[in-house]
Amino acid sequence: MSDQPNQSQEPPKPESTEQHAPAERAASMDSLDAHSELYAERTSGMTASEIRALFAVASRPEVVSLAGGMPNLAALPLDSLSQEVARLIAEQGQSALQYGSAHGVPELREQICEVMALEGISAHPDDVMVTVGSQMALDLVTRIFCDPGDVVLAEGPSYVGAMGAFATYQADVVHVAMDEHGLRPDALRQAIDETHRRGKQIKLLYTIPNFHNPAGVTLAAERRPEILEICSRHGILVLEDNPYGLLGFDGQTHPSLRAQDPENVIYLGSFSKTFASGMRVGWVLAPHAVREKLVLAAESATLCPPTLNQMIVSRYLSTHDWMGQIKTFQEQYRQRRDAMLEALEQYMPPGCHWTHPEGGFFVWFTAPEGVDTKAMLPRAVTNRVAYASGTGFYRDGLGSRQMRLSFCYPTPERIREGVRRLANTLNEELELLSTFGSNGQREISGPQAPSPDTA
Amino acid sequence: MSDQPNQSQEPPKPESTEQHAPAERAASMDSLDAHSELYAERTSGMTASEIRALFAVASRPEVVSLAGGMPNLAALPLDSLSQEVARLIAEQGQSALQYGSAHGVPELREQICEVMALEGISAHPDDVMVTVGSQMALDLVTRIFCDPGDVVLAEGPSYVGAMGAFATYQADVVHVAMDEHGLRPDALRQAIDETHRRGKQIKLLYTIPNFHNPAGVTLAAERRPEILEICSRHGILVLEDNPYGLLGFDGQTHPSLRAQDPENVIYLGSFSKTFASGMRVGWVLAPHAVREKLVLAAESATLCPPTLNQMIVSRYLSTHDWMGQIKTFQEQYRQRRDAMLEALEQYMPPGCHWTHPEGGFFVWFTAPEGVDTKAMLPRAVTNRVAYASGTGFYRDGLGSRQMRLSFCYPTPERIREGVRRLANTLNEELELLSTFGSNGQREISGPQAPSPDTA
Repeated sequence: MSDQPNQSQEPPKPESTEQHAPAERAASMDSLDAHSELYAERTSGMTASEIRALFAVASRPEVVSLAGGMPNLAALPLDSLSQEVARLIAEQGQSALQYGSAHGVPELREQICEVMALEGISAHPDDVMVTVGSQMALDLVTRIFCDPGDVVLAEGPSYVGAMGAFATYQADVVHVAMDEHGLRPDALRQAIDETHRRGKQIKLLYTIPNFHNPAGVTLAAERRPEILEICSRHGILVLEDNPYGLLGFDGQTHPSLRAQDPENVIYLGSFSKTFASGMRVGWVLAPHAVREKLVLAAESATLCPPTLNQMIVSRYLSTHDWMGQIKTFQEQYRQRRDAMLEALEQYMPPGCHWTHPEGGFFVWFTAPEGVDTKAMLPRAVTNRVAYASGTGFYRDGLGSRQMRLSFCYPTPERIREGVRRLANTLNEELELLSTFGSNGQREISGPQAPSPDTA
Repeated sequence: MSDQPNQSQEPPKPESTEQHAPAERAASMDSLDAHSELYAERTSGMTASEIRALFAVASRPEVVSLAGGMPNLAALPLDSLSQEVARLIAEQGQSALQYGSAHGVPELREQICEVMALEGISAHPDDVMVTVGSQMALDLVTRIFCDPGDVVLAEGPSYVGAMGAFATYQADVVHVAMDEHGLRPDALRQAIDETHRRGKQIKLLYTIPNFHNPAGVTLAAERRPEILEICSRHGILVLEDNPYGLLGFDGQTHPSLRAQDPENVIYLGSFSKTFASGMRVGWVLAPHAVREKLVLAAESATLCPPTLNQMIVSRYLSTHDWMGQIKTFQEQYRQRRDAMLEALEQYMPPGCHWTHPEGGFFVWFTAPEGVDTKAMLPRAVTNRVAYASGTGFYRDGLGSRQMRLSFCYPTPERIREGVRRLANTLNEELELLSTFGSNGQREISGPQAPSPDTA
């Protein structure tokens, strides 16, 4: 998954300089909307994410974008892949270009079980459903479980796309604090108790245990059984989102939550980071009865995932050294992570903190007291660097001192230059603050404060 | 669109012989579902369609399936297509395999405007959004407009997949009668009045004006402005679903509703019938402000449609004689339609009626009084022919004497043989009825009766 659609195919639009005023734009558009009386209630919760508003500017070539979540595909073997796809269409085109089942191509579902076995999961292909990226799995799981007002627990900060799905079905997100070892069991217990005291039903715990987006931390092994036990005891399903699990920089994988509790965990996987995001092939592994409901929901959503894409991924897995390719990706991302951490160490002013990810795509960065990263963003873009400001990763307004820095897409050289520009921007901001004082952003402290910024 | 996923990749499952008792299966599964207390309210409305329950049996090679809606892809130029796709991946793989925007690839959106121009539509590419088949467009339009209890008007009978989408968002469907000239304006007025008298809000009129699925009729040109005027006057958006519009057998296209009322019509199109269904590339054209909302909804649903598939379709349109290919499809489907109509004329007993489609995939068939097509289906399958029984195309229990017969996929020879077997089945059924009397199905008459069976 990613919250970072590639808009490089589209030229920046004229109005892109106005993007720091999305509320004004939305208001002016609504007044032009002849159908504004007809929308469903849920539609009022559909707003452009803060991150999305950045794309047009951040995709200008002179800007170093540390905002995006696009995987780096430069290492893909395009020539051999193109030959395999050509063979597939010539030999099996009548199947590959035809409708399939909503459940997914059987051969691919078997291969997905082999992929998941790398993380300790034992699963039957019948319990796997293929989806149009794991974003679709997020949508469908929320669809079948969440009535308006139901609560989903999620790490604070959490993945923007998941929060969009929860908002679509009018579920409320309650954030649970993390530290450098991931989700805190004590904070989970507290969130459950407080939510139940408010009389709300909790349906799901949404968690990204490995190489968290955006926090860059990994859930400690010893916390995993405890978290599973807490959720099981309270009748809360665990929704484990694991797009980065195979992208650990030391080559180690963490045993998935699903492996430890097959009956109470719904597991989401994706080929977007280990193969190619533009295929939009992800999957969900669920307890059998839940999987049945998911297939019915998927039929109504898209009839079936694209047959061609499923057969391409299946063929890629059977004809290419896909595990070797993942090792190549690991090594590339490790180099980029190193470049970012070194540059942060070298350039950043005192008072900054950041996480040290052992895999995945993201560093979570905390600026010194008084800095509002959202307010600072236009200045950063003027300095030709972009990031994702922290408030976009919370549903409750936290994160104003934070930002997500992505090291997945730019080269190590560009990353270093981007961090240097960002440090300059921060220094300018701090100078302004010391001259004119804080510009009114909230102070955040106590147990509700964003917590992975512990490094 | 189609309600006919191809399950030929999956062997019939052991339980497939039990499929005439879906309610029992669902009940037994629910009792095994540890999470049955957690589902959202909407999930109770998600049930396997009657048609879907058929797939396993109908896909056995000895059965002539007149049930499916799979396009016939035999005429596709697989060799040249495979070469173009290979070139695309080799030359533009870094874009084709990467995330894109939820809005869709700009070049394809421009080409889609050229395709729609064939039906008299003048549109800006910015108002087009690419979707994962037009089923996804149905899902998203319903998502942004329908609160639970809102009413969607739809022809009776109507497309199964659309009714699934409406049910997902807990919208109520009110059917509007058709005749051989399509949706009846007088019935539309009556349905609006009756629904408003019940105090319900009508959000959409869902209509398939050309070569209707399943009714096989086309909305008369002179009715189109009248229907648009009625909807506009009552503040009801028109959702025009037009997957078959270019598949008219005389090569003529009908001017779309969208062309006549750009401000109050949302138009759905698809490459599933004119190119390849397994690509899952469809689109929605909507008034600008509605399109903005649709993009936000699409981001939450799948982030973006597969970039690869969009670029393949775009390349196909620019490198192949796609209009010549559509002519080939038209000719093939015309031959199949002729085979079906001739066989129906030759074999069917007195008292049967059927529509005479001038395009598309489907004939709507009405059996003699007393026949219950759903109850008869197991006998038909024993006689090695399958069809889609009529009740599946209504939300209100009508259609028990009807069935949908598809001529899209089997060869003309197989169609003739299938119709012969179906006629034998009907004759057996009529003999049983004359011996033992009606087995209790409802009699249907008056203005609410299914009406396209007028031929």
